[in-house]
Amino acid sequence: MKATVLVRPKPGILDPQGQAVESSLRHLGFEVADARVGRLVDVELDDADPAEAHAALESMARDLLANPLIESFTIELEDAHE
Amino acid sequence: MKATVLVRPKPGILDPQGQAVESSLRHLGFEVADARVGRLVDVELDDADPAEAHAALESMARDLLANPLIESFTIELEDAHE
Repeated sequence: MKATVLVRPKPGILDPQGQAVESSLRHLGFEVADARVGRLVDVELDDADPAEAHAALESMARDLLANPLIESFTIELEDAHE
Repeated sequence: MKATVLVRPKPGILDPQGQAVESSLRHLGFEVADARVGRLVDVELDDADPAEAHAALESMARDLLANPLIESFTIELEDAHE
């Protein structure tokens, strides 16, 4: 089963990479009000059960993929949004 | 209008960050077959028209957010998947 974990800086947390992207986009002539940069991790799991896969992905995100102090994460199971 | 640009390493392109994540997840006891790491950029646009916003985001992705040689990107408009 394929899944994606989306990791974003929490609101209010400074995001210098996002500020750089926002500024560069403005310099290129794009009208953007805000830009924030996060990470995504595509994971292929041996687990076939969606509920178990979701639970495993939540542990992965909390333990390794995201820093819960400054980042929030969302989990998307590929089968769920097809 | 809010949108997200998802940037991923193309298939076949070496992804050392993904390999490190995969190896760390296995060491933590998770059964993963593969992991690939990409970026996401949340953009807030002044543009209200979905078609124009999509076109602008495609230019942004090609010009700045992704490296088309080694990365692919997808665009998600927030209004479109609500």
